[in-house]
Amino acid sequence: MKKILNKLKNNEISVEEAEQLIKTQNILELEDYAKLDNYRSLRTGFPEAIYAEGKTNDDLINIILNCSNDNFLVTRLTNERYHLIKNKLTKLKDDGLNLKYDYKSKILVIRKNNPKKIGKIGILSAGTSDIPIAEEARIVAEESGCEVIYSYDVGIAGIHRLFKQIRTMLEENVEVFIVVAGMEGALPSVVAGLVDIPVVGVPTSVGYGVGEGGYTALNTMLQSCAPGIAVVNIDNGFGAAIFASTILKSKK
Amino acid sequence: MKKILNKLKNNEISVEEAEQLIKTQNILELEDYAKLDNYRSLRTGFPEAIYAEGKTNDDLINIILNCSNDNFLVTRLTNERYHLIKNKLTKLKDDGLNLKYDYKSKILVIRKNNPKKIGKIGILSAGTSDIPIAEEARIVAEESGCEVIYSYDVGIAGIHRLFKQIRTMLEENVEVFIVVAGMEGALPSVVAGLVDIPVVGVPTSVGYGVGEGGYTALNTMLQSCAPGIAVVNIDNGFGAAIFASTILKSKK
Amino acid sequence: MKKILNKLKNNEISVEEAEQLIKTQNILELEDYAKLDNYRSLRTGFPEAIYAEGKTNDDLINIILNCSNDNFLVTRLTNERYHLIKNKLTKLKDDGLNLKYDYKSKILVIRKNNPKKIGKIGILSAGTSDIPIAEEARIVAEESGCEVIYSYDVGIAGIHRLFKQIRTMLEENVEVFIVVAGMEGALPSVVAGLVDIPVVGVPTSVGYGVGEGGYTALNTMLQSCAPGIAVVNIDNGFGAAIFASTILKSKK
Amino acid sequence: MKKILNKLKNNEISVEEAEQLIKTQNILELEDYAKLDNYRSLRTGFPEAIYAEGKTNDDLINIILNCSNDNFLVTRLTNERYHLIKNKLTKLKDDGLNLKYDYKSKILVIRKNNPKKIGKIGILSAGTSDIPIAEEARIVAEESGCEVIYSYDVGIAGIHRLFKQIRTMLEENVEVFIVVAGMEGALPSVVAGLVDIPVVGVPTSVGYGVGEGGYTALNTMLQSCAPGIAVVNIDNGFGAAIFASTILKSKK
Amino acid sequence: MKKILNKLKNNEISVEEAEQLIKTQNILELEDYAKLDNYRSLRTGFPEAIYAEGKTNDDLINIILNCSNDNFLVTRLTNERYHLIKNKLTKLKDDGLNLKYDYKSKILVIRKNNPKKIGKIGILSAGTSDIPIAEEARIVAEESGCEVIYSYDVGIAGIHRLFKQIRTMLEENVEVFIVVAGMEGALPSVVAGLVDIPVVGVPTSVGYGVGEGGYTALNTMLQSCAPGIAVVNIDNGFGAAIFASTILKSKK
Amino acid sequence: MKKILNKLKNNEISVEEAEQLIKTQNILELEDYAKLDNYRSLRTGFPEAIYAEGKTNDDLINIILNCSNDNFLVTRLTNERYHLIKNKLTKLKDDGLNLKYDYKSKILVIRKNNPKKIGKIGILSAGTSDIPIAEEARIVAEESGCEVIYSYDVGIAGIHRLFKQIRTMLEENVEVFIVVAGMEGALPSVVAGLVDIPVVGVPTSVGYGVGEGGYTALNTMLQSCAPGIAVVNIDNGFGAAIFASTILKSKK
Amino acid sequence: MKKILNKLKNNEISVEEAEQLIKTQNILELEDYAKLDNYRSLRTGFPEAIYAEGKTNDDLINIILNCSNDNFLVTRLTNERYHLIKNKLTKLKDDGLNLKYDYKSKILVIRKNNPKKIGKIGILSAGTSDIPIAEEARIVAEESGCEVIYSYDVGIAGIHRLFKQIRTMLEENVEVFIVVAGMEGALPSVVAGLVDIPVVGVPTSVGYGVGEGGYTALNTMLQSCAPGIAVVNIDNGFGAAIFASTILKSKK
Amino acid sequence: MKKILNKLKNNEISVEEAEQLIKTQNILELEDYAKLDNYRSLRTGFPEAIYAEGKTNDDLINIILNCSNDNFLVTRLTNERYHLIKNKLTKLKDDGLNLKYDYKSKILVIRKNNPKKIGKIGILSAGTSDIPIAEEARIVAEESGCEVIYSYDVGIAGIHRLFKQIRTMLEENVEVFIVVAGMEGALPSVVAGLVDIPVVGVPTSVGYGVGEGGYTALNTMLQSCAPGIAVVNIDNGFGAAIFASTILKSKK
Repeated sequence: MKKILNKLKNNEISVEEAEQLIKTQNILELEDYAKLDNYRSLRTGFPEAIYAEGKTNDDLINIILNCSNDNFLVTRLTNERYHLIKNKLTKLKDDGLNLKYDYKSKILVIRKNNPKKIGKIGILSAGTSDIPIAEEARIVAEESGCEVIYSYDVGIAGIHRLFKQIRTMLEENVEVFIVVAGMEGALPSVVAGLVDIPVVGVPTSVGYGVGEGGYTALNTMLQSCAPGIAVVNIDNGFGAAIFASTILKSKK
Repeated sequence: MKKILNKLKNNEISVEEAEQLIKTQNILELEDYAKLDNYRSLRTGFPEAIYAEGKTNDDLINIILNCSNDNFLVTRLTNERYHLIKNKLTKLKDDGLNLKYDYKSKILVIRKNNPKKIGKIGILSAGTSDIPIAEEARIVAEESGCEVIYSYDVGIAGIHRLFKQIRTMLEENVEVFIVVAGMEGALPSVVAGLVDIPVVGVPTSVGYGVGEGGYTALNTMLQSCAPGIAVVNIDNGFGAAIFASTILKSKK
Repeated sequence: MKKILNKLKNNEISVEEAEQLIKTQNILELEDYAKLDNYRSLRTGFPEAIYAEGKTNDDLINIILNCSNDNFLVTRLTNERYHLIKNKLTKLKDDGLNLKYDYKSKILVIRKNNPKKIGKIGILSAGTSDIPIAEEARIVAEESGCEVIYSYDVGIAGIHRLFKQIRTMLEENVEVFIVVAGMEGALPSVVAGLVDIPVVGVPTSVGYGVGEGGYTALNTMLQSCAPGIAVVNIDNGFGAAIFASTILKSKK
Repeated sequence: MKKILNKLKNNEISVEEAEQLIKTQNILELEDYAKLDNYRSLRTGFPEAIYAEGKTNDDLINIILNCSNDNFLVTRLTNERYHLIKNKLTKLKDDGLNLKYDYKSKILVIRKNNPKKIGKIGILSAGTSDIPIAEEARIVAEESGCEVIYSYDVGIAGIHRLFKQIRTMLEENVEVFIVVAGMEGALPSVVAGLVDIPVVGVPTSVGYGVGEGGYTALNTMLQSCAPGIAVVNIDNGFGAAIFASTILKSKK
Repeated sequence: MKKILNKLKNNEISVEEAEQLIKTQNILELEDYAKLDNYRSLRTGFPEAIYAEGKTNDDLINIILNCSNDNFLVTRLTNERYHLIKNKLTKLKDDGLNLKYDYKSKILVIRKNNPKKIGKIGILSAGTSDIPIAEEARIVAEESGCEVIYSYDVGIAGIHRLFKQIRTMLEENVEVFIVVAGMEGALPSVVAGLVDIPVVGVPTSVGYGVGEGGYTALNTMLQSCAPGIAVVNIDNGFGAAIFASTILKSKK
Repeated sequence: MKKILNKLKNNEISVEEAEQLIKTQNILELEDYAKLDNYRSLRTGFPEAIYAEGKTNDDLINIILNCSNDNFLVTRLTNERYHLIKNKLTKLKDDGLNLKYDYKSKILVIRKNNPKKIGKIGILSAGTSDIPIAEEARIVAEESGCEVIYSYDVGIAGIHRLFKQIRTMLEENVEVFIVVAGMEGALPSVVAGLVDIPVVGVPTSVGYGVGEGGYTALNTMLQSCAPGIAVVNIDNGFGAAIFASTILKSKK
Repeated sequence: MKKILNKLKNNEISVEEAEQLIKTQNILELEDYAKLDNYRSLRTGFPEAIYAEGKTNDDLINIILNCSNDNFLVTRLTNERYHLIKNKLTKLKDDGLNLKYDYKSKILVIRKNNPKKIGKIGILSAGTSDIPIAEEARIVAEESGCEVIYSYDVGIAGIHRLFKQIRTMLEENVEVFIVVAGMEGALPSVVAGLVDIPVVGVPTSVGYGVGEGGYTALNTMLQSCAPGIAVVNIDNGFGAAIFASTILKSKK
Repeated sequence: MKKILNKLKNNEISVEEAEQLIKTQNILELEDYAKLDNYRSLRTGFPEAIYAEGKTNDDLINIILNCSNDNFLVTRLTNERYHLIKNKLTKLKDDGLNLKYDYKSKILVIRKNNPKKIGKIGILSAGTSDIPIAEEARIVAEESGCEVIYSYDVGIAGIHRLFKQIRTMLEENVEVFIVVAGMEGALPSVVAGLVDIPVVGVPTSVGYGVGEGGYTALNTMLQSCAPGIAVVNIDNGFGAAIFASTILKSKK
């Protein structure tokens, strides 16, 4: 733009030419942007998500009722809050949408159509306390079209059972692993050392002392020496599921 | 195992039977493990990597000369150190291996065969200071069989050029993006908001004040609201490349 | 002062002269201070603010009733607390003051006169959860004499709507932007990259995992590569509004 | 976009109509963006800046020689590095550019034209060790068109001298204060308590023990109870100067 | 494995031979693992522990009822929760198990047989607030077969009483000390300076200001100059007891 | 004491009686202390250690020459410093002491008698970069009378070799494991999950990004779910060896 | 001790002589300790304090009823807890003790005699929210024998009132200042810059964003450039009062 | 001021009366300030200090030569720098000042008169590495007029020697203790538990692992349960000495 203006100042081009050139340049840039938008069209099919935490009930109801998407999720919605707001959502049912609330994952699924199938993933978690985050990942993945095989007790039954679960999932042809772990967060490294498909690590805030808040689990996953592992935010089951679905979708 | 031992104590089985049962159980477990090892066979083809930092020159030379792999990499090897040790590595050339040192990425590539092609990835970085990490990712990805398209000046030339680069890469059918960024680390979120393929964020330690060490960039990527993004450790170009390659390999 | 005392000790001046000299020196200093006070007179017009958090109800009522200012604000006053104390504040109405409580921003406005108009600012926030802090900024700015144009849903409706809102605000001649954001806190950088007027970033404590407490948003804003941006404390909508108002006032 | 595609699927519109509608929508968005670009035209006049730290000498020389801007700055360029690269920059002089290196602020100024005057700012710093950052702010502000009045010894000479300096600067009609401080970082609060124009706080990494790295100074400024203060990153004299200049420019 | 496959590729061995070799190699590895399992048999006798925090009541009851161990513990079970779930556990009593809940340590002991005696340990804590963690250590140690001598008021009665308690415990032939301390966490260092047997430090989250969360106590213990001290996680009375029991068991 | 003084004030006892009572009370306390000192006599046999880091060469030489112990160690003494000071230590050789410097562990051993044998320990480390700390532990343990079996390449050769090394060490009847690990620090947990003797974890400062400084390794070990593990400070091979030796000594 | 034992081993002294020498050495050490105890006798007169937080009500009542001191304090005792336990403390009144509960400082004073006067101190605090900590300091100081002059609103009424309060206190001959401040914690530095007597800074946990928990206030006080200032833990009004009293006592 | 202006606006007073009233109010405030200055006169006698770190040699020489004080100190001046600048300071000697450089404390003392004696203090440090900070405290205290008794090897010779040193110092009538400690920083608590005079804790940055930078030592001192202790910044021997001197001075 500057060069054009300089040319104008130096009387190399007229004001009209300058205006034309600037518009042209902007249009070129806009065309790039527009084309990107077309590439992005793949994304159709992912459910939209509304993060309930930190919103007032009134705001939340408003946003849900005005959501223009056919399929969407309300995440981090506690059982108590769901029961406080559900009567205000009857209009959605009248509009032909199905509502399904799951208290473990704290997700409310609102759905018109079943998602199109895109592939299989495996979800593993070590501790019972990690289940809510693992379930968040499961439901989001399913709503994105993934078939999910899961096992949440591999830490309880020991390494023997872990080996077996991983083998079973590989035989079922899962294409991505989501591994959920709090405490010292070592499970994703162990899994990544045994398999050859992408492992998405989800640290949870389950822990105490130095493990409180999930930072130890997060750092262990980031600093892992095992190959083929990447990480999402603490307690971000949602993000892990979307990332895994993106891998599956991009493979078709 | 405990049940078996209890049965023994309760005289339900003999010592010999117990011994047999325990061995059997162990064998079952071992078989699971052995089968996993077969699933892992895919991994053949990834180069082994030796992390040079923190090793003495003597240790490093020893490890390199005794590496049983045909193709391998020495990472985080500074230019100075390379010139100090290269004369001790002539035996490798005699064994028919090719050595190629790249001072930007600080990687020494030691190679017998060209890697088998597995697909295309795109690497983007915003700042000139991020280039060493981006180059580490590029060389590791190439040695893993990826074809790499890269653009390291998208931050300098502005958002206009970023749009263009992403579009070009998508038209070239890259299947994964690796996005390298220090400072406030926002670039991976921007890219993930525009494309529909997996984005692997690599925070770098480039920054000052609150950005020193790369923690701000790391946290921004982890806390990103954009969908389809996962993260590796600060300055871990190597890990991002292996993760991206794992995605490509698992698609075949 | 020391030189004077030394002269006294050395009999170069009398005790009376010393006393005189010291007083004179103090007076000179005092005059500087007094003159500064005159420069500060501009500040008349800003409302005084009482921060309710951490004060007992009794203390709070006392402070409010004894506030000598005509216009003042009580900030961080929750709905519950307001309803507990409002009956004790009737004397204020008898004194001709207007009371207006706003539960979203948690501010009680107590006002005799309408503030003198000083200019226009724009307030943007990305998430519904950031609204309380954005509203705190809006009400404080309005009470300081700003006309406020705001848009709190730019994150929901996407970058398309963001562009439109910014353009509208610029056409309305806002002179400063206040941009409120939690999570990864990238919005102020985006806005600062698009406009040529000062952008005041307000990080919020909205976030989870590494984003908890608002430190990721704060650090992102501080480490921002975009020009023309400065930052206030986490959740400090009040401070951002006063800073923006100071800019407007100093322009007249 | 989704609605359009749905209409297409439901046979409410033709493929051609859909294509048209999508393009139209993109164009609307692009026009918003293009208009923003016009608003941004004000920014012409700010010097471009190249951050030298973390770039190799070769990269740095390349970037400098290819910089298309008439006026630009190279920041964080140590004396040693400047002397290593200056001989490679003679081409710039041949092109009619003036080069001026300042070792205190570590800035190399490359300039064709004198910047257009935009107003006056005052810069204060408490300690001798803070001078490099204060000087960085001064030179960047001057290159942006500010007239700068500065005083770097207010901490040494005590509060008496501080009062005097502030008064002098106000009488000279400075419109913004930049206040640079390390250690406990209290100076910006003190200044903001005495004046009625915007104060931009710049924490420096000068300090020891709990003050090391500048975090104590940063946090003190962010948590300041004084009104009319906003903050930039630790040691970011550059950012403070650009922010102050943005305020001055937006006032014309 | 790679060498085998290479040989196969080079036609040095047949497919059948390769398969055989791989299986053999796996079996060798498995045999190592199986043998390790035998060494581990010592561990029989430690109670299994179920960590109640973070599990829903339903999950907890399920896990308890399905626990295949004769002796086990439920830890971090608050008094309130115990009373909510105890009626669901009557089946355990019918199965001949004894249940004993201790509200100070928040442990529910479920036991068929008395643990086999393995030796004596001493437990010291300084403050009344540290007692819950010290009691957790005591009960876990007792259930592991330790005889425990304890003194929880050494901090209250002063150094005089501390000396006396340590002497008494040594005369009783304790073989390990567990020392529990919050605040500045100095007690384990003091004890380790006076005795010649292993000291296991347990930092607690008791403290305020810089001591909040127990990090000061933890760091003091880790950085201790006294010899013969090792540390477990904050509030981890359970881990300290298991570690001390492991020392005792390994001595027989 | 206070009661005694109160009695005196109330004329219940005479000044002389009070003096006597106070002395008696102090003597009782002193006797406790004196007895503790006898219990501590076990410790004879441990080498004294002088920490070289942070001392000037002059101070260090002085301390070494005046050390009254027959056997002692100088730790954290770099190769460079050793060569600077060794000529000043010849007097020690004249006194019949043996000096042995080891550059890997940075320890100078000064010894009159061979240490008395107290038992066997195993030392494992995963990475080549962890060897200096592992060697520090080995030499200190040997000087304390331990026979040490070690394996420093278990991370390179994979889990297969780890299993084998652990089995070999157990067959050799090691009584304690010291496990040294940087990066994500998972090795001690793995070992503790396989054996039934005490495991002392030593985190090292080897790591990058979130692993820098060794905090991730430390926290992983502290938060470990495996039983029978306790931890010492980052890079504290010395402390781990003394702790392990204390276990061995207390068993005789 | 070692030398004695060596002499014994070398037959230079008999077993009996050795025993005698060791006892003698211990006695010498004990005598040092005993003498220290005499120096400590000054301390008589300070009230003992029981920290209520973290203790159960039952434990607390027990400790109070068994406290052998005539004068003592229960600190951090909330109003609610006081009303729950006060009926259990009637025995104390029967024993002739006076009980006085103060809800602002959360202190229960239990007293037989009035404390002996030891001097005057001044307590300043800036914010209303800091009053509980300032009151804790005041009551503890008074119970230690200090006469306290205080002013808690110096922050509200501005620097003018601060000057006046300090002047008044100095005219009243206070010998130490305790200055309580949260937020950015600058008040102690300001006071220390104006007076020539010791200033004890007490940071409070009052603050938000970067000031949360009181760390910013603490660090500001520690990093203060003003002379004559020392600091206690966050919210530690108790410790500041004891420290100030120690200064006063040591002056008599 | 506002009330006065309001009265003016309401025509209750004339412009001249208002001007007079404002001046009067300012004068009252100034008089307070002037009086404070008189109270501060005590401070005469403390040496001024110039902190050398972070200043260029040129700046440092300039400041030293222009220092108007008769007695002053240059602190944190390394041996190397002293030898670089000492030739530029000869003018000071010509002016009759004595220069004395001490390399351990890194202090250059510049003095005309001997300081007036104000009392005795004791300085203790545990480790040889803490000596530079202890010496900084000693020299600053001596230059402030304190007689200093010190013992820097109490940690080496054990608790026996510590008792003896404390007793000796108390017999010599020291009035304040300065206790310098790195690592876990427990020494000040131990001393404060034994004496009845003020203890000023100085944490040092000596330590490793979790103790690196001195934060563990600092936090231990702040969280200390011992009475009569206050703390200064890490490595701030200077501040501790000035604080101790302030106590001594205020006692006369």
